[in-house]
Amino acid sequence: MIKIIVDAMGGDNAPYATVAGAVQALEKDKELYLVLTGRQNEILNELGKYKYDKSRLEIVDCPDVIGMNDSPTEALRRKQSSMMAAYWMLKNNDDICAFVTAGSTGAAIAGGQLILGRIRGVKRPALCPAIPNSRGGVTLLLDCGANAECKPVMFCQFAILGTAYAKAGLNMSNPTVGLLNNGTEDHKGDNLHQKVYKYLSEMENINFIGNVEGRDIMIGNVDIVVADGFSGNIALKSIEGCGKLFLGVMKKEFSANLKSKIGYLFLRKAIKNMRAQLDFDKFGGALLLGLKKPVVKTHGSSKPVTIANSIANAASIYRGNLVPKVQELLSVTDLEAIAGECDD
Amino acid sequence: MIKIIVDAMGGDNAPYATVAGAVQALEKDKELYLVLTGRQNEILNELGKYKYDKSRLEIVDCPDVIGMNDSPTEALRRKQSSMMAAYWMLKNNDDICAFVTAGSTGAAIAGGQLILGRIRGVKRPALCPAIPNSRGGVTLLLDCGANAECKPVMFCQFAILGTAYAKAGLNMSNPTVGLLNNGTEDHKGDNLHQKVYKYLSEMENINFIGNVEGRDIMIGNVDIVVADGFSGNIALKSIEGCGKLFLGVMKKEFSANLKSKIGYLFLRKAIKNMRAQLDFDKFGGALLLGLKKPVVKTHGSSKPVTIANSIANAASIYRGNLVPKVQELLSVTDLEAIAGECDD
Repeated sequence: MIKIIVDAMGGDNAPYATVAGAVQALEKDKELYLVLTGRQNEILNELGKYKYDKSRLEIVDCPDVIGMNDSPTEALRRKQSSMMAAYWMLKNNDDICAFVTAGSTGAAIAGGQLILGRIRGVKRPALCPAIPNSRGGVTLLLDCGANAECKPVMFCQFAILGTAYAKAGLNMSNPTVGLLNNGTEDHKGDNLHQKVYKYLSEMENINFIGNVEGRDIMIGNVDIVVADGFSGNIALKSIEGCGKLFLGVMKKEFSANLKSKIGYLFLRKAIKNMRAQLDFDKFGGALLLGLKKPVVKTHGSSKPVTIANSIANAASIYRGNLVPKVQELLSVTDLEAIAGECDD
Repeated sequence: MIKIIVDAMGGDNAPYATVAGAVQALEKDKELYLVLTGRQNEILNELGKYKYDKSRLEIVDCPDVIGMNDSPTEALRRKQSSMMAAYWMLKNNDDICAFVTAGSTGAAIAGGQLILGRIRGVKRPALCPAIPNSRGGVTLLLDCGANAECKPVMFCQFAILGTAYAKAGLNMSNPTVGLLNNGTEDHKGDNLHQKVYKYLSEMENINFIGNVEGRDIMIGNVDIVVADGFSGNIALKSIEGCGKLFLGVMKKEFSANLKSKIGYLFLRKAIKNMRAQLDFDKFGGALLLGLKKPVVKTHGSSKPVTIANSIANAASIYRGNLVPKVQELLSVTDLEAIAGECDD
């Protein structure tokens, strides 16, 4: 049995999307047991719409909900909230394996660091989405916003965290790592990125292939893209904006007149395939890497399928032994020797 | 008459694309007079394929070509090259209004700064592409890579340069300016971006609307996005990668089987419209802003239509009085007072 806790009140469509997603996840994976935190009445109300295996779901009543605009400090104080209650249970119960939330990113990071805690030796957790690429797979991008300012040693750790995720969650045996930079040449970037390039080159337990550019993320020339949280966030959101524009233009053009509507009928399946390949929701949220247990943060606008996929993602990462893999990679990498002087 | 000089040997498809583009541009704009620099024989060979007004085109024979991998320092030394010869003529001839090149970006920036020279008061030139947005217009993004490390005062100048471009080249009367950051809240970003936010807020001659995110570039919630060259480059290339993936998936899916091929026939016009709206080539390259005359750098892979549009873009910016507009905005903005202390 894999017991996962789900913040049933997190996100714009909660508890409808979270409850529906939880039911879908239970249906797909018979080993799952879910704990939903949130307002019991509202959750029961949603659950009433579905058939599900009641022996594999429980509710923990939490009267409070953290808003998307609450500051992380404020959020941490609210122990009765669906998110922070979940973090406390995750911390205090050995049998709870992982946590899924569509709530505020800032609060999720704060709770992860200050309630659940980091894996021993990890300096800062990183937010790591899996982004669809043109090889039909995904590219991991971390950090994407947990840390606006990064020291060199943090990049080295992101490389370790990403490698562990790719091995544990995505069955990659020797995933490649690239450094997000403003060009592929060795000397590119500011002082910080030049330093990081050198340190990553010296690491033995990752498969570093050098600098990569923004375009390599979706082209998929690399498995793991390591970035400072500022640049990673800008890359991720630039991609989101581009995808949104593309789908918007497609929708407009394909319903412009009778001829295009007829064409659409013929292409419906192709367009569905296309959307599926480009659909971030399919990949089940961003992992908050470096914490003592897997935490998956999905988009605030998550639909039921996104929640279900995020739960499946959390289960798969747990099954793949993410945390032990991170520990193993950390233990065999002497970061002090490589980047020790940069930790000031 | 508007005399524009064109680097006929720049880019992967030169001189075929540059010559064909020049001929197209001459045909469209009867006021244009073009000077092509490059290997005379090769240019004449290409010109032989077309009918064009010979009284409005001349060739300056340059035996040398700068490669995409030559260092900027190396490139500057090669005065006989099509790019550097063009820069020297641009500098020394008052009647030459602007310059268009598809050659190496690094060389174009170096030549612009060190041969042509900056507008008095401009600290660093910025690379500024116009990116299609969902409003059907374009968003300017600068800097996109001319300066990997930026001081606060440079961001303030980018805001001025972008505003002048939007007014001179795009007929915007009061273009909005946003700061590329990892969130829209006032306090977002690292120290540098927090400082820049404050300075931009205090500038009176730009229409600053606050922080913007990567997604706002293509959604088009803002006219001008100001960024350090590192982040701007990552945003631009992330968008490029996403667009490439999208078009690739579309091509694959729409030719997957007979049904989708039939659908494609009905949707051909819609898809053409779609490509046109998302086609960077249409917008005629990136402006190298802050120099004494307009310089347009187009993609190395430019096709004839891209070159033609870049020439038209250069002409339109010249007609719109870009350089005087930059000078005017610089003269009424007391950057010393706003960001004086940051110039260290």
